[in-house]
Amino acid sequence: MSEKYAKLIEEVRAKSPLVHHITNYVTVNDCANVTLGIGASPIMADAIGEAADIAAISSAVVLNMGTLNERTIPSMIAAGKSANEKGIPVIIDPVGAGASQLRNETIAEQLREIKPTVVRGNISEIRFLAGLAAETKGVDAAESDMLDSDEALAVAKDLAVKLGCVVAITAAVDVVSDGERTVLISNGHEKLSGLTGTGCMCSSLIGSYCGANPELPMESTVAALLSMGIAGEIAFEAAGGLGNGSFRVSLHDAISRMDTVTLTSRAKIQEL
Amino acid sequence: MSEKYAKLIEEVRAKSPLVHHITNYVTVNDCANVTLGIGASPIMADAIGEAADIAAISSAVVLNMGTLNERTIPSMIAAGKSANEKGIPVIIDPVGAGASQLRNETIAEQLREIKPTVVRGNISEIRFLAGLAAETKGVDAAESDMLDSDEALAVAKDLAVKLGCVVAITAAVDVVSDGERTVLISNGHEKLSGLTGTGCMCSSLIGSYCGANPELPMESTVAALLSMGIAGEIAFEAAGGLGNGSFRVSLHDAISRMDTVTLTSRAKIQEL
Amino acid sequence: MSEKYAKLIEEVRAKSPLVHHITNYVTVNDCANVTLGIGASPIMADAIGEAADIAAISSAVVLNMGTLNERTIPSMIAAGKSANEKGIPVIIDPVGAGASQLRNETIAEQLREIKPTVVRGNISEIRFLAGLAAETKGVDAAESDMLDSDEALAVAKDLAVKLGCVVAITAAVDVVSDGERTVLISNGHEKLSGLTGTGCMCSSLIGSYCGANPELPMESTVAALLSMGIAGEIAFEAAGGLGNGSFRVSLHDAISRMDTVTLTSRAKIQEL
Repeated sequence: MSEKYAKLIEEVRAKSPLVHHITNYVTVNDCANVTLGIGASPIMADAIGEAADIAAISSAVVLNMGTLNERTIPSMIAAGKSANEKGIPVIIDPVGAGASQLRNETIAEQLREIKPTVVRGNISEIRFLAGLAAETKGVDAAESDMLDSDEALAVAKDLAVKLGCVVAITAAVDVVSDGERTVLISNGHEKLSGLTGTGCMCSSLIGSYCGANPELPMESTVAALLSMGIAGEIAFEAAGGLGNGSFRVSLHDAISRMDTVTLTSRAKIQEL
Repeated sequence: MSEKYAKLIEEVRAKSPLVHHITNYVTVNDCANVTLGIGASPIMADAIGEAADIAAISSAVVLNMGTLNERTIPSMIAAGKSANEKGIPVIIDPVGAGASQLRNETIAEQLREIKPTVVRGNISEIRFLAGLAAETKGVDAAESDMLDSDEALAVAKDLAVKLGCVVAITAAVDVVSDGERTVLISNGHEKLSGLTGTGCMCSSLIGSYCGANPELPMESTVAALLSMGIAGEIAFEAAGGLGNGSFRVSLHDAISRMDTVTLTSRAKIQEL
Repeated sequence: MSEKYAKLIEEVRAKSPLVHHITNYVTVNDCANVTLGIGASPIMADAIGEAADIAAISSAVVLNMGTLNERTIPSMIAAGKSANEKGIPVIIDPVGAGASQLRNETIAEQLREIKPTVVRGNISEIRFLAGLAAETKGVDAAESDMLDSDEALAVAKDLAVKLGCVVAITAAVDVVSDGERTVLISNGHEKLSGLTGTGCMCSSLIGSYCGANPELPMESTVAALLSMGIAGEIAFEAAGGLGNGSFRVSLHDAISRMDTVTLTSRAKIQEL
């Protein structure tokens, strides 16, 4: 069952798609390195004078509002619209949605102006997008949001229908839905939440897979989250006891060595 | 004697305080990761449209002017004032004070508009703040400032009285003073100065400890500098001979594994 | 033959020159850490209010347009002109030249307003600067540009004459030319292209060497590229099989332990 997802990595490594990021400066280096590690090619370009042009020559666009500002908000809109015009996949990562009025207005504007291919967030962020009450604590998921899976399932599916795109909620069990099909992924390790940027890296991986497999956004998203979850497990086995620094190094090691066999043999997925 | 400092880490790990950073893009990833490693939760948000809002929902605010610019200078002021209004601890890291007129004017404005809880810098920066002549070389302490401890003691104490806050000078021997009490910390390793951002990381740790122990800024600052100094010693023992890359990984390992027992048993402090 | 290059590292470690960077936020942390690792002192400062002032107190200036924007483009010009006035070496890294009109106009402006000491790029970027047709794919060299060495030789030499500076093309075989002399460097490892920022780090190393040896820009550039290439080989031997994370750690280890003996014994250079 998992092979249809697992084999998509081969397209990433064969095509090395260019993945345009407008993203935050906290985790941008990790995002660039996992993009390279999985076999794609990152470019970060957020000036309004080139955001649309760079998007137009890319194979996927990742918009991450982690450190949004007055200068980059219009650039994200320009890049997203440019990608939409060309039929290039757009991944939206609504970091911290619900945490400030600026973030709330920005994500609302993005969803008004841009048609996303995939939206990925934690349960607080996705619940905010779904217009539900959400208790948000900064950019990490609030504890009270650790979450009953049934609710996550319903929220993901509803938002997918509402936006007409794939919605992914990353948590202990990831949920991916396109409104009709829903997939649960039980891979991963809790130590991933002790590193900054593992959510952002998921979005970069989704962009990498979608860039190489643009006709398969649902499968690409599942493959990307499998890649991060399984890399987290391998990294824990290799270095989890040493501490966060070693775990992070091993995570990048595992991403760069990921392949179809590893993905297939370790995948813990449930198709609903 | 060291236990009153060492036990504060337990509050950080129990409360996981949200620590708002407006900081430089050079070392921001390390700052986020040590904040997570010590048990707190980082958020970086520097847009003027949300800086005050994010500060108001945080448990501590860290203002680091390492890569200040025209856009972020007002955001730092807004975040600091917002924190002051709510009684939230504010940590100021005057990176490169003395190195340019822009930095000098910016730190002067910050100290006029914001009441800091803790100011942490190297001896060049703190001496500049104290209005003394300082030979500054970029963002690192000038060599001629390697420094007689008696002068550092006097400068820290005087500035603490002048600003009504805790002042920390990090060097081979760290000095922390609230104007009445002064503590010297002899932990640490010279290899820490071979990595970028170890000073910035100290400020993030101070923010983390203060966020969980807001009534104890002096003790929190000592605990934070103990944490970094002892982590540096452990990292040197684990990987110091391998080079800077391995030393950095081990530093993050040690921060993430730090606990009361380690802090108590290794602390080299002197209360004056 | 290689000793005249290899011995320059001793000046870097002895003088610890201040290297001012205006660079991209993707790889800036790695740039700061290799600058420290090789023995120099990094400062990143891109506000228009201080760019010229910081350049004027530095020993070298590195201008990298990887994430250029409307705010930093004038700062790069100001820093470069300030360095020119003081006779301070300027290293220009034209990241992504050819990829967007904004980048093309920016590099044209830089070459009009600033006299560079060294220009370093991949073959796509350098070919763009030479006014030749170049197929550019984002910020990495396009595959069709993997490249016949004869053409790279001719392009480097012609551009060096045209600009009156040293030109370096980094690839499997690096080419360095000042218009009269040309040096080929065969060190390095293909895994370097799997990490983000290895090109940017080369430019930081060139800045570090030039800052300590301002009268020898050609030799400094060769020494810097030798340092990165040999560090890549050592890192591959130490950790290449583990994956990208470990390789990166070992790369920083090797840079920080580099010395004249290692450079001399491993150098694979050809002087033309």
